[in-house]
Amino acid sequence: MKKLFIISAIFSLHLSLGIHSFAQQSLTQRPEVTSPVINGDTVTFKLYAPKAVTPKTIGDFPGSPLLMDKDSTGVWSATITLPSELYIYRYDIDGVFTADPANAFTVRDIATNFSLLLMPGDVTANYIVNNVPHGRLSSVWYESPALKTQRRMSIYTPPGYDESQSTTLYPVLYLLHGMGGDENAWPTLGRAAQILDNLIAKGEAQPMIVVMPNGNAALPSAPGESWLGFTPPTTSLPHTMDGTFEYAFEDIIDYIDAHYRTIAEPSGRAVAGLSMGGFHALNIANLYPDKFDFVGLFSAAISPRENVDNHLFTQREKMLDRLFGRGLQLYWIAIGKDDFLYDANSEYRAQLDSSHYPYEYYETDGGHTWKNWRRYLARFASKIFK
Amino acid sequence: MKKLFIISAIFSLHLSLGIHSFAQQSLTQRPEVTSPVINGDTVTFKLYAPKAVTPKTIGDFPGSPLLMDKDSTGVWSATITLPSELYIYRYDIDGVFTADPANAFTVRDIATNFSLLLMPGDVTANYIVNNVPHGRLSSVWYESPALKTQRRMSIYTPPGYDESQSTTLYPVLYLLHGMGGDENAWPTLGRAAQILDNLIAKGEAQPMIVVMPNGNAALPSAPGESWLGFTPPTTSLPHTMDGTFEYAFEDIIDYIDAHYRTIAEPSGRAVAGLSMGGFHALNIANLYPDKFDFVGLFSAAISPRENVDNHLFTQREKMLDRLFGRGLQLYWIAIGKDDFLYDANSEYRAQLDSSHYPYEYYETDGGHTWKNWRRYLARFASKIFK
Repeated sequence: MKKLFIISAIFSLHLSLGIHSFAQQSLTQRPEVTSPVINGDTVTFKLYAPKAVTPKTIGDFPGSPLLMDKDSTGVWSATITLPSELYIYRYDIDGVFTADPANAFTVRDIATNFSLLLMPGDVTANYIVNNVPHGRLSSVWYESPALKTQRRMSIYTPPGYDESQSTTLYPVLYLLHGMGGDENAWPTLGRAAQILDNLIAKGEAQPMIVVMPNGNAALPSAPGESWLGFTPPTTSLPHTMDGTFEYAFEDIIDYIDAHYRTIAEPSGRAVAGLSMGGFHALNIANLYPDKFDFVGLFSAAISPRENVDNHLFTQREKMLDRLFGRGLQLYWIAIGKDDFLYDANSEYRAQLDSSHYPYEYYETDGGHTWKNWRRYLARFASKIFK
Repeated sequence: MKKLFIISAIFSLHLSLGIHSFAQQSLTQRPEVTSPVINGDTVTFKLYAPKAVTPKTIGDFPGSPLLMDKDSTGVWSATITLPSELYIYRYDIDGVFTADPANAFTVRDIATNFSLLLMPGDVTANYIVNNVPHGRLSSVWYESPALKTQRRMSIYTPPGYDESQSTTLYPVLYLLHGMGGDENAWPTLGRAAQILDNLIAKGEAQPMIVVMPNGNAALPSAPGESWLGFTPPTTSLPHTMDGTFEYAFEDIIDYIDAHYRTIAEPSGRAVAGLSMGGFHALNIANLYPDKFDFVGLFSAAISPRENVDNHLFTQREKMLDRLFGRGLQLYWIAIGKDDFLYDANSEYRAQLDSSHYPYEYYETDGGHTWKNWRRYLARFASKIFK
C-alpha cells in the first residue's frame, strides 16, 4: 500500500506499440516532435522522417504543397503564414499520403483521414470550444418505416434544453450533408455544435435543436457505425439523389416531434443542406410545403443525379409555386464564386426570379468547400426563428 | 435543370488535396489500395509506399512487427492469421510511425492515432454494431462546484430510455478511464455503447445508464473539446491520483440524479474503472459508502500516485471497514496475469482476505490492455443490477 503508482507504466500499451520499432532504430535517439506549432499567424508543420527524400505538406490552404527542410535529427519542417481558418492537411512522404503522425487530431473526410489545424483569429473563434454554456451532441437511432430500417443521426440540443424542469419548446433546424458525407459530417468538419454554442452564447442565434440525419437512403449510418461494418464510403451508392431520401424524410420529422420538445409548426422548422444536402433541402421543402418556414441551400446541387422520372423533379415548378404560394419566411441561397455549381445556381435563381419568388442570395469567394459551408451555417442559423 | 449532377465533382475538395502530389508522380499511375483486407481469420495489411525500404506493420497482436513484401506497383503487404479481437496497428515506414493511410477508421490512444481492426468472431461480436435496439451516446456538460468549472462527460442511455412516454427509472454505472484517457476513452477504445447494446439485446445485462466522466481533475474535457485547445495529453497532469477527483465526484452523481430518470439509491448505482479509474472507483466507494452497491476494479492501481497525506489513503482500512460493514452486493476485482499491477492487486486482495471482506476475483491472461478491459466491462455489466 505504500508503493507509489508508477505513471509511465500506465502507458505500457502505448509504448509497446512503438517499442518494437524503437529497437530497430539502432539506438538512435528518436526526437520528440510537436506538430503543428502555431505562433501567432504562422504555423510550422514538423515530421520525423529520417529517410525521406522530398516530403511535402499538402493542405487546403494557399501555397500547398509546401516543400520541407530537414534538420540534423531527421525532422523536416515547413512554415507558412495563414489567416484564421479551420484547415485540413496531410503529408506526402515520397508517395505515401498520410495524416501528421504528431497531430492527435484528425478528421475523416469521406474515406481519408486528414490532420486538423485551427489557426486562431476571428473566423475560428466561432469553431473552437469556448467557456460558454454548451448544448449536448447525441447519436440517436430512429426507426424509418419508409426505408424499413433503423437509422442513425446526430442531434444537438441547445444549452438549457436538458434542464430537468424545463418545458420550453424549441425550433428545429434539419441540417443535411453532402455526397460522401454522413451524420458525422456536420458535427466534425462542419463544427455544428461549436458554431451553435457560440452563436447562442453571443445572442446571435436562437436556441434551437439541430438534427443531422444520414442522407444516404441506402445506408443506416456512417461507415463503422452499423452492422454493415467498416465499409469505406463509396461514390457508387444508389438512391442518393433520386427522391428516396426526401420521401422518407417525414419519418425523421415524426420522430423528432414525438421525442423532443419542438415547436411543431412551420415557424419552428428549418431545412438546410450543403451540395447534395442542398438538393435534398430544396426537394424536401417542395415535398412538404406546409412544414418549413426556413430553407437554406448551401452550394446546392440543383439537378438530380439519376435521370429519374419522379414528380419531385418533373413537377418542380408546380411544387415551387405551391411552396412560395404558402408564404415561407426565408429561402436562402448561398454559393461561392468558384463553385462548380455556380452556373446551376445562377440558372435556378433566374427561374425563381422569373416567377417573382422571394429569396435571399449570399455570394462568397471560394468554391465547394467546408470553409464556405461553416460560414453559411453560421449566417443561416443567425437568420432563422427570429 | 436538365443537367445531371456530376458526382465526381462533389469530391473536389478531397481530390484537390491529393492532386498536387498526384502531379508530382510523373504521371505514374497511383494504385488503389484497400487495407486492411480481412478474409476469414486472416488479414492483409497493404501500404502504397513506392520508395520505402523496409516498412513494417506494428500492432498489438502476436507476431508484430510484421515485415512486408513489395509488389511491382509499389504496394507492400503483410498477411497474418489472428483470433477474433479488436486490434490497433500502425506502420513504421523507415522510421515514420503512421496510421494506415488506406484505413479510414482510427482511434486515438492518448496522443497517438492508431488504425482500427476488428477481426470477426465471437469476441468482436460484442464490439460491433449489430442490428439490435441501440441506446444513445451523448456528450454532456455538467457544472462542478467542487472543481469550479463546467466539465464534459459521455453518457449512454439504453434502448427504451428515450421513448417519450417512458417513466421507467434506470440504474447507473459510473465507468472511469485510465491515465492518459478521457471521457472519450470508453466510448472509443472501450466500445462501451456497443457492448451495452449487445448485452442488453441478448438479455445478459439490465438496461442501464452508463456515465463516463473525465477523470482528470485538472481538465474540463478531452483535448480538443474545451477552451484549453488542442493540447495533446501529457503524462504530467496534476491531481490525477491525489483524491481531488474523488472528492468532486458527488457533483457528478448529483447532476445525473437531477437530470436522468435514475434509481437514486445504492442498489441502482455501480462504480467501476480501469487502472487509474480503478483506483478512483476504489476510493469513491470508500468515500461514499452509502452510494454504491456494486464496485468494479479493472486492473486497478491500488496506491496513490502522489505521496499525499489524505485520509482517503491514510484511513483506507477504516473506510473499507465502513463500506463492507454496510454490506454492498458486489466488489469485483479483475486483472491479467501479466499486468504490472498484478502484485499490487494480490497484496490488496490479501488485505481484504485478512479482514474477511467478500469480493469476487476474476483473473485472466494478458496484461494492462484494452483487450482485457472490454472483457471486464462485459462481464461486470452482466453481474450488476440483478
